[in-house]
Amino acid sequence: MCRIASYIGPEIPLENIIVRPNHSLLAQSQKANEAKLAVNGDGFGVSWYNDTSDLPGLYRDVLPAWADDNLTNLCRMVRSPLFIAHVRASTMGETSRVNCHPFSHGRWSFCHNGQIPHFPAIRRQMEAALPDDLYAARRGTTDSEMIFLTLLANGLDHDPAEAMRKTVAAITAQNAMSPVKMTCVLSDGESLYGFRYGSDGIAPTLYVSGTLDNGGRAIASEPLTGMATGWNAIEQHTLCRLGPEQNEMRSLVA
Amino acid sequence: MCRIASYIGPEIPLENIIVRPNHSLLAQSQKANEAKLAVNGDGFGVSWYNDTSDLPGLYRDVLPAWADDNLTNLCRMVRSPLFIAHVRASTMGETSRVNCHPFSHGRWSFCHNGQIPHFPAIRRQMEAALPDDLYAARRGTTDSEMIFLTLLANGLDHDPAEAMRKTVAAITAQNAMSPVKMTCVLSDGESLYGFRYGSDGIAPTLYVSGTLDNGGRAIASEPLTGMATGWNAIEQHTLCRLGPEQNEMRSLVA
Amino acid sequence: MCRIASYIGPEIPLENIIVRPNHSLLAQSQKANEAKLAVNGDGFGVSWYNDTSDLPGLYRDVLPAWADDNLTNLCRMVRSPLFIAHVRASTMGETSRVNCHPFSHGRWSFCHNGQIPHFPAIRRQMEAALPDDLYAARRGTTDSEMIFLTLLANGLDHDPAEAMRKTVAAITAQNAMSPVKMTCVLSDGESLYGFRYGSDGIAPTLYVSGTLDNGGRAIASEPLTGMATGWNAIEQHTLCRLGPEQNEMRSLVA
Amino acid sequence: MCRIASYIGPEIPLENIIVRPNHSLLAQSQKANEAKLAVNGDGFGVSWYNDTSDLPGLYRDVLPAWADDNLTNLCRMVRSPLFIAHVRASTMGETSRVNCHPFSHGRWSFCHNGQIPHFPAIRRQMEAALPDDLYAARRGTTDSEMIFLTLLANGLDHDPAEAMRKTVAAITAQNAMSPVKMTCVLSDGESLYGFRYGSDGIAPTLYVSGTLDNGGRAIASEPLTGMATGWNAIEQHTLCRLGPEQNEMRSLVA
Repeated sequence: MCRIASYIGPEIPLENIIVRPNHSLLAQSQKANEAKLAVNGDGFGVSWYNDTSDLPGLYRDVLPAWADDNLTNLCRMVRSPLFIAHVRASTMGETSRVNCHPFSHGRWSFCHNGQIPHFPAIRRQMEAALPDDLYAARRGTTDSEMIFLTLLANGLDHDPAEAMRKTVAAITAQNAMSPVKMTCVLSDGESLYGFRYGSDGIAPTLYVSGTLDNGGRAIASEPLTGMATGWNAIEQHTLCRLGPEQNEMRSLVA
Repeated sequence: MCRIASYIGPEIPLENIIVRPNHSLLAQSQKANEAKLAVNGDGFGVSWYNDTSDLPGLYRDVLPAWADDNLTNLCRMVRSPLFIAHVRASTMGETSRVNCHPFSHGRWSFCHNGQIPHFPAIRRQMEAALPDDLYAARRGTTDSEMIFLTLLANGLDHDPAEAMRKTVAAITAQNAMSPVKMTCVLSDGESLYGFRYGSDGIAPTLYVSGTLDNGGRAIASEPLTGMATGWNAIEQHTLCRLGPEQNEMRSLVA
Repeated sequence: MCRIASYIGPEIPLENIIVRPNHSLLAQSQKANEAKLAVNGDGFGVSWYNDTSDLPGLYRDVLPAWADDNLTNLCRMVRSPLFIAHVRASTMGETSRVNCHPFSHGRWSFCHNGQIPHFPAIRRQMEAALPDDLYAARRGTTDSEMIFLTLLANGLDHDPAEAMRKTVAAITAQNAMSPVKMTCVLSDGESLYGFRYGSDGIAPTLYVSGTLDNGGRAIASEPLTGMATGWNAIEQHTLCRLGPEQNEMRSLVA
Repeated sequence: MCRIASYIGPEIPLENIIVRPNHSLLAQSQKANEAKLAVNGDGFGVSWYNDTSDLPGLYRDVLPAWADDNLTNLCRMVRSPLFIAHVRASTMGETSRVNCHPFSHGRWSFCHNGQIPHFPAIRRQMEAALPDDLYAARRGTTDSEMIFLTLLANGLDHDPAEAMRKTVAAITAQNAMSPVKMTCVLSDGESLYGFRYGSDGIAPTLYVSGTLDNGGRAIASEPLTGMATGWNAIEQHTLCRLGPEQNEMRSLVA
């Protein structure tokens, strides 16, 4: 299991989400309240967007987030209007930078919290379904990276909700007996998306904040304040989009 | 806080102590029962002795022990009649190899679990008391390494019990108000020593096993079987020596 | 390009090959004489065999070999009758432990020096040709690991020379225009194999020593003495086997 | 030996100095032209200033700079009007983050290229001369960090030229027989300083650029263009200051 925190809104230092809140992502890396594992020490990562580059920045390393001075420095210095951060508790794939979230491809960056059951048994089948360019883009060995590439193959660029629906259907079809768990946060540099799906109705938690003091909004595994007030659980099987203009909650079941 | 496991006796693969037991050091690194912090993920290390070299081998790295394939490989392949392993939960000093235990100097290797309160305030004083060769031997920034060097300066080579007594006295004298906690495991390649001291009577736990099935004995922060049977708590203020010939429990208070 | 050093014979400390010789592998990592790149600082690895375990030990890390105290310690302490070590100069695949040589699978361990041209273009084809168990065994993204898995798929266990011939033929067929370069050292824990192949007749260097003072023999990218005396270049397109009983040079062209 | 590149002027992405030029710092890390060692693979670091924080950002790691994707990402995304970057070829102190340059203290960040001969012999003496707060600020074991702390002790905040003069005098006095080499680049967040001193007249190279196309200026170990045109060698025993308003070359001998 893992923990995720992300933000969209007026430009802020990354630390305002990752380090400073009472129950920041860094705090959650040592003591998560709503995760199967309280400690998320198997690496971390952050993707962020700005005007300087068309592609997101990506900083990932294998140390526990709480032990990395570089991360603290980065979070203090770097400002961004849109970013996603992740701390990892490894369930699959060794601890290496390429297995740390977020994964990125073009403008997209993607974090996952959950698990595809029996992934080794269906990995070859999932990889065979990828077009050549996405097949070549694999770097690591996680089910999470495979979900991301499958989303891209299923048209993430054109219709994120439809891509999510197709991907969930494909993975669930291959796991008739075991529960698939997919809680994701992703972005194309324009909007911030949060999604929860558990084939048994139980996916890892994900919350969306109301409008924060500075006018921005956040999506996180657990309320960054440590209190439910001002945060709403994203419903199961629902894709939440926070965009620059209007926000949207869209059930994928309908 | 940290967790320690060590062994003396007929040569065995390191994994018999570090990996395989029910409540092995690796298990304790993820879920310690008797430590202030359940997770010890800020690096690890192992020192081991054999006939090939006069000096102990030393393998230390900054990853959590559970995430390091090299450690598992090493523990499976390397046999030794005398070794000490440590997993770290950082209280002082950044996560770097030189701050990981064990520390070694000549034939000695040393692990510590505990804390010198207000160490930054008395560090200069403690360093000033070292002879030149030990002053030059410092590599990191921990209170633990400083305790080790002070033990050496206080005659560890000639009389470990006396060195321990002097060191405890010196450190306690500088910390009238705050409790000093020193639980240590160390070796000169001949004997294995375990020591507990808490100026307030409360030092981190340390247990010595009875004679194991293979004729060896172990000293560990928590019984490696996960059960108290066959393990004895080392008393506060007591130095336990397990030697090749006869074993010894010696109170340092007397 | 990379540099390799390996040994078979009476048990010795690893450092006798990796650290101590005038032109040891460690020396070659900083100043290779016969490689395209003089510096091989993109990680390293060593596999070794002993009686304690059926599988080889594996120690790999991403630091330059010369900067790793753990490696020096290991080489001083660990004795083995059969081992292979490698320093990497990255041409393909990011610097990560899973991309460091040797690769291991069951009893086999494998090092490569060379390159499959246009590997990204034929990677999918090569992976598709693997049986399921070897497909699932991939961990990294290098052409070297792919050569190893293809060798295993081509019957390395039963006839190493034939597996080498088939693998060379398959890879060369997919690279009509560009020279394939494959200099390999590998072992099944019984024999030590060295192999050179360049489709243009130019493969990275590989030398086999005569009988060393202690009765053992070595295979290395460059003579470990720094002088040609006592070392023979392995011919192009030739598989050299050093076994416990008799040694063999076998041309794969015939 | 090491290589340094730094910049002051209108805000630019870090990559414009560290990655993109023909003979960028990254290129120099693999193939330096004017250094004793062509390869600088023992870690790297960058300090940068901006309006978000009073203190400089600091990113340091132990991999070779050319192998670190995080560094490339950072350099692409982060913009700054004032920054210093360093690649290390270790002569003293193990490869660890705390031994990587730049070192920082308050607003200051500092890089060094050179060596104090016999540093282990005079380390204690130099540390004894530090006031308590700077003594407590030591993190690693390099002569470079010690030079920085000594500069601070000698009034770097108030008169950089005088601090440099005093520090050179103190170190040279303790090394009557062996040449002291100190080429430094440092900043207080306002000005960028470059300094060269060799007690034998031979210090590592340092060049200052003329006004660049964008109006900024650079100081680097080797011209970033790979050509001398538009770059001036900083004279021995001279402190060069590039400030927001006026620039200055000041001989420390006079």
